[in-house]
Amino acid sequence: MPRSPIEYMNSVKDGRVVYYRGKRVDDITTHPVISIAVRHASDLFSVKERLYEDPNYGLVSKYFRIPRNTNDLLDRYKLIYEDTLRFDGLFNIVQAIGSDALFSLMIIAKKVDRKYGTNYYDRVMRYYEYAVKNDLAMAVAQTDVKGNRAKRPHEQEDKDMYLRVIEVRDDGIVVNGAKIHTTQGPVANEIIVLPYRALVEEDKDYAVAFAIPANTKGLKFIVRPVLEYDGNSNAVNAASRFEVEALIVFDHVFVPWDRVFLFREWDLAGQLAWTFATYHRFTAISYRAATANLYLGAALYAARANGIENAPHVRDWLVQMIMYKEILSMGAMAAALEPWIDEGIAIPNPVYTNVSKLYANAHFIDVVHGLIDIAGGLIATMPSHDDYVNLEERQYISKYLRGAVDGDTRYKIMSLVRELGASHLMGYLLTAMIHAEGSEAASKIGMLREYNYKEAEELINKILSKIKI
Amino acid sequence: MPRSPIEYMNSVKDGRVVYYRGKRVDDITTHPVISIAVRHASDLFSVKERLYEDPNYGLVSKYFRIPRNTNDLLDRYKLIYEDTLRFDGLFNIVQAIGSDALFSLMIIAKKVDRKYGTNYYDRVMRYYEYAVKNDLAMAVAQTDVKGNRAKRPHEQEDKDMYLRVIEVRDDGIVVNGAKIHTTQGPVANEIIVLPYRALVEEDKDYAVAFAIPANTKGLKFIVRPVLEYDGNSNAVNAASRFEVEALIVFDHVFVPWDRVFLFREWDLAGQLAWTFATYHRFTAISYRAATANLYLGAALYAARANGIENAPHVRDWLVQMIMYKEILSMGAMAAALEPWIDEGIAIPNPVYTNVSKLYANAHFIDVVHGLIDIAGGLIATMPSHDDYVNLEERQYISKYLRGAVDGDTRYKIMSLVRELGASHLMGYLLTAMIHAEGSEAASKIGMLREYNYKEAEELINKILSKIKI
Amino acid sequence: MPRSPIEYMNSVKDGRVVYYRGKRVDDITTHPVISIAVRHASDLFSVKERLYEDPNYGLVSKYFRIPRNTNDLLDRYKLIYEDTLRFDGLFNIVQAIGSDALFSLMIIAKKVDRKYGTNYYDRVMRYYEYAVKNDLAMAVAQTDVKGNRAKRPHEQEDKDMYLRVIEVRDDGIVVNGAKIHTTQGPVANEIIVLPYRALVEEDKDYAVAFAIPANTKGLKFIVRPVLEYDGNSNAVNAASRFEVEALIVFDHVFVPWDRVFLFREWDLAGQLAWTFATYHRFTAISYRAATANLYLGAALYAARANGIENAPHVRDWLVQMIMYKEILSMGAMAAALEPWIDEGIAIPNPVYTNVSKLYANAHFIDVVHGLIDIAGGLIATMPSHDDYVNLEERQYISKYLRGAVDGDTRYKIMSLVRELGASHLMGYLLTAMIHAEGSEAASKIGMLREYNYKEAEELINKILSKIKI
Amino acid sequence: MPRSPIEYMNSVKDGRVVYYRGKRVDDITTHPVISIAVRHASDLFSVKERLYEDPNYGLVSKYFRIPRNTNDLLDRYKLIYEDTLRFDGLFNIVQAIGSDALFSLMIIAKKVDRKYGTNYYDRVMRYYEYAVKNDLAMAVAQTDVKGNRAKRPHEQEDKDMYLRVIEVRDDGIVVNGAKIHTTQGPVANEIIVLPYRALVEEDKDYAVAFAIPANTKGLKFIVRPVLEYDGNSNAVNAASRFEVEALIVFDHVFVPWDRVFLFREWDLAGQLAWTFATYHRFTAISYRAATANLYLGAALYAARANGIENAPHVRDWLVQMIMYKEILSMGAMAAALEPWIDEGIAIPNPVYTNVSKLYANAHFIDVVHGLIDIAGGLIATMPSHDDYVNLEERQYISKYLRGAVDGDTRYKIMSLVRELGASHLMGYLLTAMIHAEGSEAASKIGMLREYNYKEAEELINKILSKIKI
Repeated sequence: MPRSPIEYMNSVKDGRVVYYRGKRVDDITTHPVISIAVRHASDLFSVKERLYEDPNYGLVSKYFRIPRNTNDLLDRYKLIYEDTLRFDGLFNIVQAIGSDALFSLMIIAKKVDRKYGTNYYDRVMRYYEYAVKNDLAMAVAQTDVKGNRAKRPHEQEDKDMYLRVIEVRDDGIVVNGAKIHTTQGPVANEIIVLPYRALVEEDKDYAVAFAIPANTKGLKFIVRPVLEYDGNSNAVNAASRFEVEALIVFDHVFVPWDRVFLFREWDLAGQLAWTFATYHRFTAISYRAATANLYLGAALYAARANGIENAPHVRDWLVQMIMYKEILSMGAMAAALEPWIDEGIAIPNPVYTNVSKLYANAHFIDVVHGLIDIAGGLIATMPSHDDYVNLEERQYISKYLRGAVDGDTRYKIMSLVRELGASHLMGYLLTAMIHAEGSEAASKIGMLREYNYKEAEELINKILSKIKI
Repeated sequence: MPRSPIEYMNSVKDGRVVYYRGKRVDDITTHPVISIAVRHASDLFSVKERLYEDPNYGLVSKYFRIPRNTNDLLDRYKLIYEDTLRFDGLFNIVQAIGSDALFSLMIIAKKVDRKYGTNYYDRVMRYYEYAVKNDLAMAVAQTDVKGNRAKRPHEQEDKDMYLRVIEVRDDGIVVNGAKIHTTQGPVANEIIVLPYRALVEEDKDYAVAFAIPANTKGLKFIVRPVLEYDGNSNAVNAASRFEVEALIVFDHVFVPWDRVFLFREWDLAGQLAWTFATYHRFTAISYRAATANLYLGAALYAARANGIENAPHVRDWLVQMIMYKEILSMGAMAAALEPWIDEGIAIPNPVYTNVSKLYANAHFIDVVHGLIDIAGGLIATMPSHDDYVNLEERQYISKYLRGAVDGDTRYKIMSLVRELGASHLMGYLLTAMIHAEGSEAASKIGMLREYNYKEAEELINKILSKIKI
Repeated sequence: MPRSPIEYMNSVKDGRVVYYRGKRVDDITTHPVISIAVRHASDLFSVKERLYEDPNYGLVSKYFRIPRNTNDLLDRYKLIYEDTLRFDGLFNIVQAIGSDALFSLMIIAKKVDRKYGTNYYDRVMRYYEYAVKNDLAMAVAQTDVKGNRAKRPHEQEDKDMYLRVIEVRDDGIVVNGAKIHTTQGPVANEIIVLPYRALVEEDKDYAVAFAIPANTKGLKFIVRPVLEYDGNSNAVNAASRFEVEALIVFDHVFVPWDRVFLFREWDLAGQLAWTFATYHRFTAISYRAATANLYLGAALYAARANGIENAPHVRDWLVQMIMYKEILSMGAMAAALEPWIDEGIAIPNPVYTNVSKLYANAHFIDVVHGLIDIAGGLIATMPSHDDYVNLEERQYISKYLRGAVDGDTRYKIMSLVRELGASHLMGYLLTAMIHAEGSEAASKIGMLREYNYKEAEELINKILSKIKI
Repeated sequence: MPRSPIEYMNSVKDGRVVYYRGKRVDDITTHPVISIAVRHASDLFSVKERLYEDPNYGLVSKYFRIPRNTNDLLDRYKLIYEDTLRFDGLFNIVQAIGSDALFSLMIIAKKVDRKYGTNYYDRVMRYYEYAVKNDLAMAVAQTDVKGNRAKRPHEQEDKDMYLRVIEVRDDGIVVNGAKIHTTQGPVANEIIVLPYRALVEEDKDYAVAFAIPANTKGLKFIVRPVLEYDGNSNAVNAASRFEVEALIVFDHVFVPWDRVFLFREWDLAGQLAWTFATYHRFTAISYRAATANLYLGAALYAARANGIENAPHVRDWLVQMIMYKEILSMGAMAAALEPWIDEGIAIPNPVYTNVSKLYANAHFIDVVHGLIDIAGGLIATMPSHDDYVNLEERQYISKYLRGAVDGDTRYKIMSLVRELGASHLMGYLLTAMIHAEGSEAASKIGMLREYNYKEAEELINKILSKIKI
């Protein structure tokens, strides 16, 4: 049954342990900062286009629809793209990432069951049904804190640097560790935990996947400071939209067996991590293509406000921005057009997904560069919203900020551009675009690992065989 | 009826006027240089996969199949990609470009007929049937020599700088002018002439499209010097494969009315040029994706021969090359997935086509850079094939060129890499990749002209409306 | 006589009209935000290395030493570079920019006097002596708000879009207008006003240069919001160092004749603007080379904290950062080595200055990219200083943020990197590096305008003359 | 005593063993291809500006002047720059590289003598006097063929993959091996051999440096095929200017003791290689700055011929080319300004030298890209010189190649651009610019090895010490 925004909001008032800037947050739905992330998530539940009639589950969220073919993947790309546009260019992660994780768990669970005689697939499907029917908001905790990067999990001095099983009980397991970069974790109903990387046998206590409610005992969310909004009376889009990031600490957290989806089957941990990464990078290129509109549109409006829309360097930047947006879209379409079918489920083509993702990692900075170049130094030196309140200042600002449009309009446009191009938000977004869903280095490894050189090799062999010396 | 290679070769021994390096070529099928381009074209006629059973025309070439939907365009992309691979990474243009021109003529002829009451569409379709049934090899002459680029056609000092009608007769028209960059013109059966650019009314004598046999009186082909082969005993792939480029002079050439497809309807010249360019850029990204295998494969083999396949900078270059190849493929797929249907014919999506084409223009140079960096300075300083014949030298070359493979194998690989990375052929290819089917500047204009900013604008409007100052 | 920090601070408590976030600032030396910029400026007055014994003026600031040759310019480069390092990588502008303006006024005043029989040079030199002897802190207001960029000053709808003379009196002139990007204007003793651009005769009322005290009636400073510090308890370097930017409004400001250095001599306005820009870009490359150390050092420490100093992609980024820093230094040295001597004063070579400046504009973004890539997503998602105060959180942060160094050390390093790579400060700095002292477009125009193609042209002529066709 | 061109030419008719395209060359001064490289070298001997009055040796070549300070290095930069311009933009290596080697041998010989009690310094100085007094043309053979790059010299399967001592005799040593990339080796009087890399003790037989005449028994030169000239009647600059590259085989070559400058002192081989590389990279940036004029000038003339000099994308490319040229010049000046003095001899500052060199490696390709983009596809498809001979063709070419200049002038310009941008010569030059005097990877290693992070580290330490958490 689809939930309403209110039902979602009530569901997250559950005693979870959330810290923000050094203080425990009593109620995330009323906290001056966290509540904005809650409201953003809740908005997803008001979108009618999100729902479809499933033969098994009735009217449920499209995010959970298991992709079986090209069309399902194309629909998923459009769903994520359009919701991101709907929410002012900001991704709304709480059902997208959870379903990315569930699809990959379904695929890998079958393989583990076949090899080890386990019954993970049934557990995963029961959990999946629970999530679908209850229309849950979910977060995925995958990135461990990692300690010394030169060492494997079991080689770390402090063994908790990767999340691990520290106790096995009749009714479940107890885990310790911490996961970072957990977007919207503090406002989700459920946290799905996945292994971060391929493991060796000595790492087997680190081969663990499971799902738990966000208010589970021992779970602690330490939220990043949202300075693009908090203390910033100049916030524009960030005044009403952002997602929170958290470091999640697992301090002796108990997980019952029916919520455990991988346990010491270390040899499949890597494939699980990789399958999730592929789904989630497909999600990434879908929402980033939509977010790109924010930058393209802002650049266009800034150019018009400055009266330079047709200047050659402005046109060149617009071309760069369009290429950024469209290469992501092209990648999503191609990934849907040539999916890999595994265990009956369609995985987006990993080569096109990674090519497109890598382009997104490497070139978002060019989009920012273009926006700043078009906007001018004004975005770094202009007055604030507060100055507009003071009438003496207001008259001057209104008068002197006019461009090819009047001063107030230009101020509004430039205050959005300041946020997108020269603010804390830009710092956060740029870092996210470079690192989220896998850094450049990770995307390169992903791409080369799956790449099939056969056509190229055959071509060269054919040519070399003709050389006579 | 499909033709055999021999039938094609016999068909081009027709008295056409071809010059090569200052000499008139009597028979292009036996000339030491031009015959290689002839044989390359003739190979197309031996490919069984090229044919399909058309409901109207029987067994004919797939190149002429009119695209009606996504699948037809996907098939066309694969046809061009696979034929390019089949012919050692070299495009085989003689039916691809002609059909690109015919599809665009079909679309525009209908529009002109509707506006002006002409009967071009029937003429185009009759000519199309003639081409299909006779399985013709065709070239397209579009790029005028252009004279002073700051001036329109009719403003040029010498009026022939763009091809134009100089006489109108009862039975047809007489034209003067010259077209450059006419790939395989000298070895085609027919030359289709299209306008180069959008025109104004004063340019109306330049608004002309038609098709004529290559041996038409007054046509003269001046072929570029093929130095990558001619005089170069070190040629590898170029020893058996290349296409010729020509400057075609039209010296008082008569065209009968049934071969005239546009005549003074200046207001549709631009759209005809643009529609052809879109088709042909789709063709371009399809063949360039295949040609990219040549560079990717050569780089891979060079890396292996040098024993550096896993060096980080080598992996980075391979990633660049894969991105080059796959962004072209992604663009072709996306362009097919969201075609524009015009007059019942599917045009590849111009945004994705141009994005992908622009990437190809701008980044082929990175592919070359990578190949050279991986190969090492050896490709600029190594001995020649001729030195291998001298036994005293051969012993030294064999001994001292060994790397992670033996010296003779490394020599062979490096002689291919020398051709692809440090030869006349590279100079030709690099220039072609930057300029063919539209330069970077042209592709940018094409992209911005068609781009729809609506989504981006609506997004910004929505956000700006929320700002209160 | 050199002033002490206290003397400087007392001197700026003078009733000037400064606004910050909508409120009038009573005393800039005690205001919680502006006072930091004041203290930063005051630190300059405690630097002993700043002083030298001048034959005319005794012990005075080196910043005011008129450059006569290569050595003087090299000394100036080192002075700016070393002071920037001294002040934690942050430029200290208050005597550098004023002297840049004074040198250019000296050169141009002589030319105007020669042409028009004016006596500006004497006025400039008297003012210069006043500045030197009183060891003044100075700001330069050059960039007009510009209105519609497609129009010249006199064509603007609102004539005040460029600062202009609105009244001529016996004792001086009255001006109206506004200047933006006036770094440290609100904390300087004096504001030097220069024309922004080349002018035509109709613009002659805009051809004006002068200097006035910061507390002149009618002057109003509207300061940008310093969000990297204000409201941000995570500020690191920004907690103790920043300069303020202001929009300066000139509302019927009176300037006495002895402070007017250009008045309606429109034909030399462009050269004055250009000469100042050249000096100030030389200053820019000098301080930016020093600021680059901040990024290079932070990247190095982040790499070490993460245990990845020798990873190939990290080494590549370090190379990029070193190239950024050293190309700026190389440019400053070359500009000093081949100065242009004009009116007996040494101008840094404009070609090397602009080449280097343009590199700085275009590539600072790569420095930021590298820092973010090395640091990892942590800088976007990590806890805040406030969380460290809460002991329960502290234990977790300390434990889980360890890398190749302990958690507290890594937190400290990463909190600096967060500021430099993912914060409001980065947004400000990146915009400044792209636009300050002239945007990329402006630097390109500057470079091409002065470039001497003669050597290249002679070379080509010599070669072309050998071609026989 | 300075030699005349004729004296030099006579001196190289000495029975040396040179192969070109499979044939033994009897007389290099009359061979149709090699003689051009000989004449290019001989031209150096006709340059009066090359000579100066040395206190010890009288009137001798400036190339051999030992640099002691900034001015000497600045003079050397200008000498190389101006001679390169003098010889049509082509470097003339035959005294530059030899002196680079001699200076580094002087420095290292002193260190070896001090450590091992050898007398290399005296030998080097005697050889130096011989070179100076006889005004010799010299080549340096440093790059070994290297075999499997993953292995050290002594680990190679075939021990000759690096040049080594195979026999020690009373009167000298016997060596075996092969060196590649030996520019002008076949036309030099003397070959100086240096070790390629740092060595370990097991490699000690590879630690050898010496000098021998080019006609020494056992020396064999296998010359690269000069296809930009050989067989190419369209050659422009290459018709009269090029240097030859050779693989030099050392087949049991005897070297007398007084010509041996390093022998098994393996621990100083690396420093010798590095010191030579630093000198030679300084030489590289000096000549490349001059060669850049060839591209800048050709681009400018092409832009003018096409009538697009002021088009924005053309201006952007010109800016790129100017930056390329001037960053090299800036690097040379800065390297001279802050030399390292070692054993009383001035070494160009290695940081500035490597920064500048690395820029040259990485960005020459942008220069080529710009030239091609400005020139247009014409350079890949235009007629040949031979077509100009045929009068019927000539009329058409003359008529139809006109641009903003007449057709013949444009043809001449474009035939030079074709050579520089789309020919075998471009392939050779581009490869050379990427690899000669050290590849990008080598230059990065060189830069990071010498880089002093101290300033950056101190700055970060100072800031970190202020953080209180």
